[in-house]
Amino acid sequence: MIRAGIVGGTGYTGVELLRLLVLHPGVDVTVVTSRSDAGMRVDAQYPSLRGLCDVSFTEPEVDALADCDVVFFATPNGTAMLMAESLLAHGVKVIDLSADFRIKDALEWSRWYGMEHACPELIAEAVYGLPEVNREQIKQARLLACPGCYPTAVQLGYLPLIERQLIDFEHLIADVKSGASGAGRKAQVPTLMSETGESFKAYAVAGHRHLPEISQGLAMMAGKPVGLTFVPHLIPMIRGIHATLYGRLTGDAEELQALYEERYAEERFVDVLPAGAQPDTRNVKGSNNCQIAIHQPQGKDTVVVLAVIDNLVKGAAGQAVQNMNLMCGLDESVGLDIVALYP
Amino acid sequence: MIRAGIVGGTGYTGVELLRLLVLHPGVDVTVVTSRSDAGMRVDAQYPSLRGLCDVSFTEPEVDALADCDVVFFATPNGTAMLMAESLLAHGVKVIDLSADFRIKDALEWSRWYGMEHACPELIAEAVYGLPEVNREQIKQARLLACPGCYPTAVQLGYLPLIERQLIDFEHLIADVKSGASGAGRKAQVPTLMSETGESFKAYAVAGHRHLPEISQGLAMMAGKPVGLTFVPHLIPMIRGIHATLYGRLTGDAEELQALYEERYAEERFVDVLPAGAQPDTRNVKGSNNCQIAIHQPQGKDTVVVLAVIDNLVKGAAGQAVQNMNLMCGLDESVGLDIVALYP
Amino acid sequence: MIRAGIVGGTGYTGVELLRLLVLHPGVDVTVVTSRSDAGMRVDAQYPSLRGLCDVSFTEPEVDALADCDVVFFATPNGTAMLMAESLLAHGVKVIDLSADFRIKDALEWSRWYGMEHACPELIAEAVYGLPEVNREQIKQARLLACPGCYPTAVQLGYLPLIERQLIDFEHLIADVKSGASGAGRKAQVPTLMSETGESFKAYAVAGHRHLPEISQGLAMMAGKPVGLTFVPHLIPMIRGIHATLYGRLTGDAEELQALYEERYAEERFVDVLPAGAQPDTRNVKGSNNCQIAIHQPQGKDTVVVLAVIDNLVKGAAGQAVQNMNLMCGLDESVGLDIVALYP
Amino acid sequence: MIRAGIVGGTGYTGVELLRLLVLHPGVDVTVVTSRSDAGMRVDAQYPSLRGLCDVSFTEPEVDALADCDVVFFATPNGTAMLMAESLLAHGVKVIDLSADFRIKDALEWSRWYGMEHACPELIAEAVYGLPEVNREQIKQARLLACPGCYPTAVQLGYLPLIERQLIDFEHLIADVKSGASGAGRKAQVPTLMSETGESFKAYAVAGHRHLPEISQGLAMMAGKPVGLTFVPHLIPMIRGIHATLYGRLTGDAEELQALYEERYAEERFVDVLPAGAQPDTRNVKGSNNCQIAIHQPQGKDTVVVLAVIDNLVKGAAGQAVQNMNLMCGLDESVGLDIVALYP
Repeated sequence: MIRAGIVGGTGYTGVELLRLLVLHPGVDVTVVTSRSDAGMRVDAQYPSLRGLCDVSFTEPEVDALADCDVVFFATPNGTAMLMAESLLAHGVKVIDLSADFRIKDALEWSRWYGMEHACPELIAEAVYGLPEVNREQIKQARLLACPGCYPTAVQLGYLPLIERQLIDFEHLIADVKSGASGAGRKAQVPTLMSETGESFKAYAVAGHRHLPEISQGLAMMAGKPVGLTFVPHLIPMIRGIHATLYGRLTGDAEELQALYEERYAEERFVDVLPAGAQPDTRNVKGSNNCQIAIHQPQGKDTVVVLAVIDNLVKGAAGQAVQNMNLMCGLDESVGLDIVALYP
Repeated sequence: MIRAGIVGGTGYTGVELLRLLVLHPGVDVTVVTSRSDAGMRVDAQYPSLRGLCDVSFTEPEVDALADCDVVFFATPNGTAMLMAESLLAHGVKVIDLSADFRIKDALEWSRWYGMEHACPELIAEAVYGLPEVNREQIKQARLLACPGCYPTAVQLGYLPLIERQLIDFEHLIADVKSGASGAGRKAQVPTLMSETGESFKAYAVAGHRHLPEISQGLAMMAGKPVGLTFVPHLIPMIRGIHATLYGRLTGDAEELQALYEERYAEERFVDVLPAGAQPDTRNVKGSNNCQIAIHQPQGKDTVVVLAVIDNLVKGAAGQAVQNMNLMCGLDESVGLDIVALYP
Repeated sequence: MIRAGIVGGTGYTGVELLRLLVLHPGVDVTVVTSRSDAGMRVDAQYPSLRGLCDVSFTEPEVDALADCDVVFFATPNGTAMLMAESLLAHGVKVIDLSADFRIKDALEWSRWYGMEHACPELIAEAVYGLPEVNREQIKQARLLACPGCYPTAVQLGYLPLIERQLIDFEHLIADVKSGASGAGRKAQVPTLMSETGESFKAYAVAGHRHLPEISQGLAMMAGKPVGLTFVPHLIPMIRGIHATLYGRLTGDAEELQALYEERYAEERFVDVLPAGAQPDTRNVKGSNNCQIAIHQPQGKDTVVVLAVIDNLVKGAAGQAVQNMNLMCGLDESVGLDIVALYP
Repeated sequence: MIRAGIVGGTGYTGVELLRLLVLHPGVDVTVVTSRSDAGMRVDAQYPSLRGLCDVSFTEPEVDALADCDVVFFATPNGTAMLMAESLLAHGVKVIDLSADFRIKDALEWSRWYGMEHACPELIAEAVYGLPEVNREQIKQARLLACPGCYPTAVQLGYLPLIERQLIDFEHLIADVKSGASGAGRKAQVPTLMSETGESFKAYAVAGHRHLPEISQGLAMMAGKPVGLTFVPHLIPMIRGIHATLYGRLTGDAEELQALYEERYAEERFVDVLPAGAQPDTRNVKGSNNCQIAIHQPQGKDTVVVLAVIDNLVKGAAGQAVQNMNLMCGLDESVGLDIVALYP
């Protein structure tokens, strides 16, 4: 059994990791830390786990975590970079769900995240955990940077088009919408029910922190820099991301449906819908799936890709477990056989 | 492997049965019927099942269903009573999620359901499928009547108080609230998003069809008739039932918390919360659990019980699978190890 | 023109007062205070008011407020009691939407609100602002205590039955449900979209602060103490309260519908629905109406009253404006001709 | 007083017209028709109107409607074109909220709406009712075609950029999101609470009926054909449209904020937000306003316009009343002084 620790167990990605790991047949969750709730039983905070999780929150200390085989960081940005080095030194595999190791350029990271990077020497080693792009590296990784929720949906949506150089890289437009759980479980006015419910808005249009991460990922696929306009929006619901991606075709477009189907034929968690379909976030709610459709409206040269994920699963905790499976030599889908909760 | 059939696979209880059964390790879903969608792949109608279910809807014919070991009816009221006898004659176990076999008095049934009962001779044999009350009978059943969603929550909530004769049976008040999925997946104006969203109302105050079912169940627990005021309400959400139950204490109330904990100590799917807690429907969303709390506000003689379930799981498909497990000699919880989807 | 000030303009009752007052033909809003947002334009904080409100938030100072004819307190509990005396001394009418002057017994108030009352000598003078009960006193009031949202719905629902002594006063049960805006516009986890959305729960079952206020009001109607079990619940929506009220009939019940219609025949903001109807919170959303229906299910001795209001209008700001109209000699409904926003 | 009739009073645009017209100081609603509800009081169907509307639904007959000064069609497509001619012949002004007279090319109209146009000779006379574009024509109109909801938001958003020829007309991208009330009040599965709630999807990506209307409108502004990719989405809420519009700048962009402010300086119902702001649909909920913001993310050549309206007000009934005011010589904003319902 893999001994797993979770640092930052009181946020939504933390409790989502618990939802997946307490039923994972190869994992034993031994440590769950939370500064604010140390000493409290986990299932007292999260009654959905009653009967399935008998650990209590502890302070985040390296000594206790060093006994784990794998430690997940479900912390705010800036925490994993302080503890990763010690844990690695103890032979612990580190899977970071925060943004600390996603951006390869430490200065760029600092500009977007507003702090100096505490551990820039580890950035190069960190593997970006998008299995559909770099599965082999993930299998060898000691330190894994889990992609952000928006970046997961946008990269999976654009991947076949960009790998095959079929669209104009300089004018990509990603109009993406997310449920409110993406904003996390913190006391704040803007995501109150009375503020977010029955309303819809764009935010961070001038520049969202996921922009450099997406641009970096797309540039690696393209083999050159890309120009991306990324507009995130807040949907009055809890879970789900819907990416509507636009690109101008430069090459032959006749086989787009087949291109997507082939690219993802072997991918367990990416599902290309039949031609003409339009994915709905409810069909991936609670599951680790990404459902994708590709359209070319009116036969014109603008292609439209629709991609949906559950931001807390394929966009966070589920993808982290998928990466853990790969890093630990398990089958990639262990613990992730989940049917989306419809309706 | 148990060969299972589902009659009426296009409603919410039908697709919820599929969600549970496609991952059930002891079941193979071989037939799913739907008059309206016959010929269509199930996962074309329900993309949440893509990759997990490769059957197509067929017409509801006895011949095909007769090859099953178990057949679930997830049909409107009035269908199961037409087919149950033939299936039983073929040795098929029948689990009815509709109301056809819940009420023991056929005339009473006719009054509430507005049609004559087509098969009154089977009513006596049908076992009412609330395992916490009559597990042993369920194990022997050929024909099982699954409780309604409201009746499940109300009966589990009142059970310990009534069994122990602690409250005035003549003036029970059940103020119960349900999400919109309880109204089913049928085209109608009142449960449109624009009608049900952002609003709250009581309905069927003069008399809801679940009233005689609840009264019958409580009377059996009490050993005599009960007087019940039952007011159902519609919550602007999809899944979940919250029952707020009131009763006037006639006996000693000091040990109510202990009473509930003891009564349900061995029950895998009924969870008595710690004293002072208040259950939240989100903590059972997608799971087969019932969470219960008991309060005696201000120390007065009115006791308040709070009970929550997911109407589609413990209130329908999950309880049906629990019953199937019992009827087929499996462990009661196989296929039902699910953590509620929070948030 | 009445010069009106609002203390505490950044909460939901504050902005709701502004919604009503900026279009009120007899009122000029001259001062809006907010410690946190002083200096900011009101319509920068609340873009719904752009073009209709050109004042800026100021610090809450008596000097500026003393120029007003009427000052509304839309503040947390404990603020109005510190400023009311000075404002009254300047000849300003004070309308308090918080709880400071609702409870006539200062010790009782302290027990429920957890602080000593700073101004107990004014409590006796304060008039409780439920126009349907004490309109004449309101017209003469200098200091008005606006009822809480739950108390408004419960008292209007029970009023005819209790005035006429038709039910058992010792065992009243009020099962009441509120939208999330009742919890106010403050940063906190429990009313985040991801916590409150798609879920339903009871809270404060052991004792809610509105319990003594309701009990006091019902006792005044009854002419003797009442025994009340009050269970509030949180609905996953923004606006609206639905009270489901239970009582055991002691007298003749045949004319309940007529009783309610007669009692409220002259009331502009209380609307008794036709026999058999069930009110829906959406039909009063944004309006100052209370819609009520009375039922006697199955002809038994338990009567069920259903009453709905918009918690921010008839339950707060609308009722405050209604009271202001009365106190200032205007027609009671000026500025309150609003059709509910359906759908 | 203007005598107004409403044909098709049972849909959401019909009841929204009633919400506005019953309080309009210059209008008397004399006829409301509904085939399905003829004979029923309007306020029995819509309790939000109790006390404000004492008419009953009648059959849609020209004789009765001919007594009106203005008749609004809030009907499904294909009805207004059958009755408009007779009403005009009686001197009645006709305001059509359906699509019958929006498209100037009758064949194009037939292709998108799937029926032959019954009255093509009137199409040329019909004035397209977007006052910000053609107010003077509206004042003279006998037959007015109210714009669709999506077209209103998209055209107002693009208008200044296109009039000034600042963007590439061949590759416009309109990613637009609507609440569920846009789908109307008809019994159907896809907009049930359990289908639409807690989910998000794109629809009609291959071609939505509003595409030719938007293209026609933009082409008139541009003076030449435009190439538009229009992707509508369904938001899990009731009211509101959010348009996110993309364009590639071809000219000088430095003064975009000033350009928008100047273009709309005199427009009562179009509100350009301060630089950097992002509009939220809740801030126009229930009001006739369109709030707009213009962004140029990262200083690149892709401009992003955000525009929000309430689909039932500025996108339907409110704009219809605005047009009526113009056609009848009233001030444009009479009856439309409404503060959005926040929260």
